[in-house]
Amino acid sequence: MRRIQIYDTTLRDGAQAEGISFSLQDKLLLTERLDGMGFDYIEGGYPGSNEKDFQYFQRVGQLDLRRAKVCAFGMTRRAGAKVGKDRGLKMLLDCGASVITLVGKASAFQTAEVLRIDRRENLAMISESIGLLVEAGREVIFDAEHFFDGWKHEPDYAFEAALAAAEAGAKLIVLCDTNGGTMPEQIARITAAAVDRLPVPVGIHCHNDCELAVANTLAAVDAGAIQVHGTINGFGERCGNADLISVMANLALKRQGYEVLDSEQTAHLTELSRFVYEMVNMNFRTHQPFVGKSAFAHKGGMHVSGVARNTASYEHINPKLVGNERRVLLSELSGHANIKALTSRLSIPPDGKLMDDILAKVVSMESAGYQFEAADGSFDLLVRKCTGTFRPHFERLSYHVNVSTAVDGKIVTEATVKIRVGGSIRHEVAEGDGPVNALDAAMRKVLNGYFPSLEKLHLVDYKVRIINSEAATAAGTRVVIESQDEDDVWGTVGVSENIIEASWIALIDSFEYKLCKDEERPPL
Amino acid sequence: MRRIQIYDTTLRDGAQAEGISFSLQDKLLLTERLDGMGFDYIEGGYPGSNEKDFQYFQRVGQLDLRRAKVCAFGMTRRAGAKVGKDRGLKMLLDCGASVITLVGKASAFQTAEVLRIDRRENLAMISESIGLLVEAGREVIFDAEHFFDGWKHEPDYAFEAALAAAEAGAKLIVLCDTNGGTMPEQIARITAAAVDRLPVPVGIHCHNDCELAVANTLAAVDAGAIQVHGTINGFGERCGNADLISVMANLALKRQGYEVLDSEQTAHLTELSRFVYEMVNMNFRTHQPFVGKSAFAHKGGMHVSGVARNTASYEHINPKLVGNERRVLLSELSGHANIKALTSRLSIPPDGKLMDDILAKVVSMESAGYQFEAADGSFDLLVRKCTGTFRPHFERLSYHVNVSTAVDGKIVTEATVKIRVGGSIRHEVAEGDGPVNALDAAMRKVLNGYFPSLEKLHLVDYKVRIINSEAATAAGTRVVIESQDEDDVWGTVGVSENIIEASWIALIDSFEYKLCKDEERPPL
Repeated sequence: MRRIQIYDTTLRDGAQAEGISFSLQDKLLLTERLDGMGFDYIEGGYPGSNEKDFQYFQRVGQLDLRRAKVCAFGMTRRAGAKVGKDRGLKMLLDCGASVITLVGKASAFQTAEVLRIDRRENLAMISESIGLLVEAGREVIFDAEHFFDGWKHEPDYAFEAALAAAEAGAKLIVLCDTNGGTMPEQIARITAAAVDRLPVPVGIHCHNDCELAVANTLAAVDAGAIQVHGTINGFGERCGNADLISVMANLALKRQGYEVLDSEQTAHLTELSRFVYEMVNMNFRTHQPFVGKSAFAHKGGMHVSGVARNTASYEHINPKLVGNERRVLLSELSGHANIKALTSRLSIPPDGKLMDDILAKVVSMESAGYQFEAADGSFDLLVRKCTGTFRPHFERLSYHVNVSTAVDGKIVTEATVKIRVGGSIRHEVAEGDGPVNALDAAMRKVLNGYFPSLEKLHLVDYKVRIINSEAATAAGTRVVIESQDEDDVWGTVGVSENIIEASWIALIDSFEYKLCKDEERPPL
Repeated sequence: MRRIQIYDTTLRDGAQAEGISFSLQDKLLLTERLDGMGFDYIEGGYPGSNEKDFQYFQRVGQLDLRRAKVCAFGMTRRAGAKVGKDRGLKMLLDCGASVITLVGKASAFQTAEVLRIDRRENLAMISESIGLLVEAGREVIFDAEHFFDGWKHEPDYAFEAALAAAEAGAKLIVLCDTNGGTMPEQIARITAAAVDRLPVPVGIHCHNDCELAVANTLAAVDAGAIQVHGTINGFGERCGNADLISVMANLALKRQGYEVLDSEQTAHLTELSRFVYEMVNMNFRTHQPFVGKSAFAHKGGMHVSGVARNTASYEHINPKLVGNERRVLLSELSGHANIKALTSRLSIPPDGKLMDDILAKVVSMESAGYQFEAADGSFDLLVRKCTGTFRPHFERLSYHVNVSTAVDGKIVTEATVKIRVGGSIRHEVAEGDGPVNALDAAMRKVLNGYFPSLEKLHLVDYKVRIINSEAATAAGTRVVIESQDEDDVWGTVGVSENIIEASWIALIDSFEYKLCKDEERPPL
């Protein structure tokens, strides 16, 4: 078994992605989390680029980390400057990180065309900078930028740059496919050559511009790389970095001979992925390999009965190994097998009559335009209704939504709701940016006093589909709302000719599901 | 140069994905589009599974396709049944498709554990079913389901199943990694063995469960496969199918020795990707390789100046080759290529100043959430406004929409509109099944007397998308309406915080587009 080191750069290279940023607190939290998972290296930031990253390194020293080494990222000294006077290198030393990942050009083309400096000067920048850091007692990892493109263009120079780093004391040379354009067989060939010729071990850093980052990372490991760089969920500039979730799952579960996270930790990959999405305030990627909500979702009668017979028949791994779970989608093809599989997650008795009731209800709702594939919350309520365990938390008497414009174009939306709750009748009114927002606001005015946990409920997505698209505006409308609280994400669905009523049904299901779920939670 | 055939299954396997469905009209439109791009095969549907797919095959014969062959998907006969009496096979013959893609098990494990039938019976099912179709004059492609897992488990049986298909007359055997769990080096080895031993050519069909579908597809092509199966944007069950966009871009631009789409068509890949997202009402994937909005986005001073010095320094290909474009972040400059492509379809003078005006207007509207990919009607009006030729046919003074429920659950929707038209002010009221329907009805009461041709205008689809899904109900809402008259189909778009206002904007654009278009029509 060959131990492969996991090097996470979510906090540095991942934060280069559009729309992603981490607060100082986020950075510290994620560092602890990754350490708890058994990661080997965590690249925490670029102390020379901003004050927050510099502070991070001040603070991270106070964490009680179990295993991970925290690395500071920086660049080689400027061209033509004295290494002892370089501000960037000084900040790297001052920030207190014991491991420093230094990036330098490993490409004759980049040296000549982008830096526009002498190629010997580039080598001097690499070796002097590393020399300075090593002398100060730091562990140095060298990111050989553009190594693969450099090798394709002029292999000897790419090698010389990496060698200069190794000879100056870098412990490991990371071969970077900076532009993400290299093919797997090239990665394999060039990595093998580098492993063969360099006096220190190598790591691999891939980008996903050709949708090959994971394959390229695996190819490099097979060719001898001992450290993999990447980010959680593949966050990163352009098309992102190699997704460490997929890389780790593949190395741990799909390939022979490698040791990465221990199996107990691999079972937390789904949780980790979602934790990071939450942190950066992004929706989960439904179809994400291994950890997506759909990654082990089954649809269609044949598949479902196949899965029921033998889980290996339509699943490449047991979803539990990565902390994910099997889901059975309800579709028009749904039959007993589907319902059985779905209800097996809910603790209800294996009662034939009950199954028939649920199936009949699903079929009749599907023919009215409902779909439960993305509406696990509504399905849960449907089952509760069939088992007779559902107790509504409130009852709608009426609502009213009013959207009006004036000549100046200003739009005002107002909703009123009249609701029976806790033995009394409440009548509330609210404004909103649109009808659903106004209804949501009015309902919260009614319910907040009774059910304080609703404060944790957020609507995260809202989708509308016309069911019979022949007749468009007069056709059936299906609304799916995705909601979340601090623990879960769930979908609810409503169907009506009227988009407002369809939205209302989905909205109310979301409230009810949240309230039912909370009641069942064991008291702390 | 080896010609690699492109086989698209977006309409069949892609439609298996959660949340994706195509109307009959969508299916026909996409078929024409893929044919126009030079695709070799288009799997249009599964006529045995539903009425819509059966109708598709009736209608697709009337299209004037340039190159593509349209395939119907189906299964081998049922176990123990007579091939001549099989309902599924009969529907395949009846639907009229000249090419049939038949799926059967190429795995001893699946045959024994899932189908639970005799392994010789499985081979008989394959060869009799194919024999029947070939005898009836159909071209048959055989999808060897679970081929790779089957081969790993018992290579000889997987081979026998494929051979049975070939000997029964299948023209090509598609090796399927049905569960998506096979590693690239296994794909390479097993494909090479199959190519070596089978008397007919092979294709490759991969799923993305390990984030390796694109790499696996390329590995199979290198090992001798001549046909690649996949879907646009990688849509498909679980983690999706191989994304044909990435597969084609890699084969055409990143690898030597293969011929796929011609370069003129490769330059439309970005447009194609977005067209399909619009069709299924999904947001584009920002970081999607090759065609994502961020795929060639540069952030950070060094990168941007590097790119400015030499485009090859931080880009693996020229973004124009796939119809995408470079973006420097913090600038809102997006869609330049789209605008050029869009305006080239309209007969407007090639005026630099005018192009700048249009670009500025599009950029400002895009930053407000507009997208014109599926809204040719609105884009046409935008161009008319920039050229100064637009004369509105009516003016809105105000509207008012009211949705109310009573205790009995009955919902009443009423809309009023106050409109200046033909020199007078009209104030009308109408009821509808929902807000858009009621507004549409009130507007028709106003306009019908002035513009009788509106009677031919029908709204055929209505799509709603939350733009900033962080805040759901309070976020921006984009509404796209598809309309048609006796000659054309067009899309219009509206954006607002308020779904009713966004719908109004799209609705009014549709009326205006229809009226503008009619005025330009030469008198009969």
